[in-house]
Amino acid sequence: MKILVSNDDGIDSLGIYVLANALKEIGDVTVVAPRTEQSAVGHAITMKIPLRVTEYYRDNQFFGYAVDGTPADCIKMGIRNIMKEDPDLVVSGINQGSNTAINIIYSGTVSAAREAAIMDVPAIAVSVTSHDANNYIYAGKVAKQISKLVLKKGLQKGTLLNVNVPNLSEEEIQGILLTKQGKSKWDDIYEERHDPYGKKYFWLTGKLMEVDTSLEDDQFAVKSNYVSVTPIHFDLTDYDTFNSMKSWDLKNI
Amino acid sequence: MKILVSNDDGIDSLGIYVLANALKEIGDVTVVAPRTEQSAVGHAITMKIPLRVTEYYRDNQFFGYAVDGTPADCIKMGIRNIMKEDPDLVVSGINQGSNTAINIIYSGTVSAAREAAIMDVPAIAVSVTSHDANNYIYAGKVAKQISKLVLKKGLQKGTLLNVNVPNLSEEEIQGILLTKQGKSKWDDIYEERHDPYGKKYFWLTGKLMEVDTSLEDDQFAVKSNYVSVTPIHFDLTDYDTFNSMKSWDLKNI
Repeated sequence: MKILVSNDDGIDSLGIYVLANALKEIGDVTVVAPRTEQSAVGHAITMKIPLRVTEYYRDNQFFGYAVDGTPADCIKMGIRNIMKEDPDLVVSGINQGSNTAINIIYSGTVSAAREAAIMDVPAIAVSVTSHDANNYIYAGKVAKQISKLVLKKGLQKGTLLNVNVPNLSEEEIQGILLTKQGKSKWDDIYEERHDPYGKKYFWLTGKLMEVDTSLEDDQFAVKSNYVSVTPIHFDLTDYDTFNSMKSWDLKNI
Repeated sequence: MKILVSNDDGIDSLGIYVLANALKEIGDVTVVAPRTEQSAVGHAITMKIPLRVTEYYRDNQFFGYAVDGTPADCIKMGIRNIMKEDPDLVVSGINQGSNTAINIIYSGTVSAAREAAIMDVPAIAVSVTSHDANNYIYAGKVAKQISKLVLKKGLQKGTLLNVNVPNLSEEEIQGILLTKQGKSKWDDIYEERHDPYGKKYFWLTGKLMEVDTSLEDDQFAVKSNYVSVTPIHFDLTDYDTFNSMKSWDLKNI
């Protein structure tokens, strides 16, 4: 089995190291990841400047390829120019910080897996729910087990699995649940500061407004100490509105 | 009516100028747009560096606020810190180049409108289908007419309209169609070059593989000289796979 591994925290992060090592137990792993942290870049791709690719060493051993681009760039580059064939699976992560509810939209980790799904390659995004995560080991195990399951069962073309793992030990985990993207989102606040020259600048901050209350919602599932597994896709059509808009008189506007 | 206008081509582009002027005929327009071109940044938001906002003048008149961030940043900043209240409508564009089919995923123009939809504000993204567009006037008229319709009819919370206008004169347009996101996507090719120092670099190129054949598909509709109007949302859950995965034994992996 050929597995392409990427992330958005950068090729030097701990999460991708744990992930690559866990997946080496079940397949032939190629790592192609951003040279620098690319959190919250969403599905950005690099078109205005060219990309460069360099070999990256870790513990004095070749670890993978560093791309000075986005997570989505890494998947395109990894499949088209480095592997030069479709892998059997793409796994992105292990991200530091959850990618549930609205965060899926902003996530580079999820976008890497989504780029693979666009290229018809089965894909999984894996995140742990803490920004000071130290428990990647269990998440690595979950990533490996879900990867095995996806390789066995297959995924519909265009679908990826978004996996979120609570930052707990295996004993504290309540189980693994199939979930939907939750509705919790951010209440954004820009914190205003002044630079040493008296000019204003703004930091994006805010707090997550948690509205999800069902174990079928990703955000509530991880909050309740379950691993959350959400199938997502890139068909953004709102079919309900499509049907209701048939009564709009678009022809005569 | 209070209307927030943004784009991804930058505040100095022609498209946003035509759009703002067209919308001034139906409401009170505030422009908040990226200082520089932000095409293909997707739904990136800026968190690692702070944002700066400056007043931008055009034809010696105040035109709007330039933010040195992404289109999604502009919407958050525009609503939270500049307007300080929800506008009645957000319109993003007029983008140079179509945002149909898979391009919706990469588009900064669509992501600006999507950020508004996340904030429960009705939103529209408008693009013309040529990269050397000179026919923004008709697209501006369409943007105004569809804006009026949305203000009258309302949109379900979380839904935005993605509008694509062929680069034709009004007489050549075949009509306006309600569409779905098409399935056409890119066959990516990285063009390899060498810098003056002998080091390799890669430009992303490729061609759109057009698979859409129905006038209900956005890509085929614009190719057939129709204006395409697609309702999209940010619920990425793949409900079909969600239902089929209930038979997966996740509990015992």
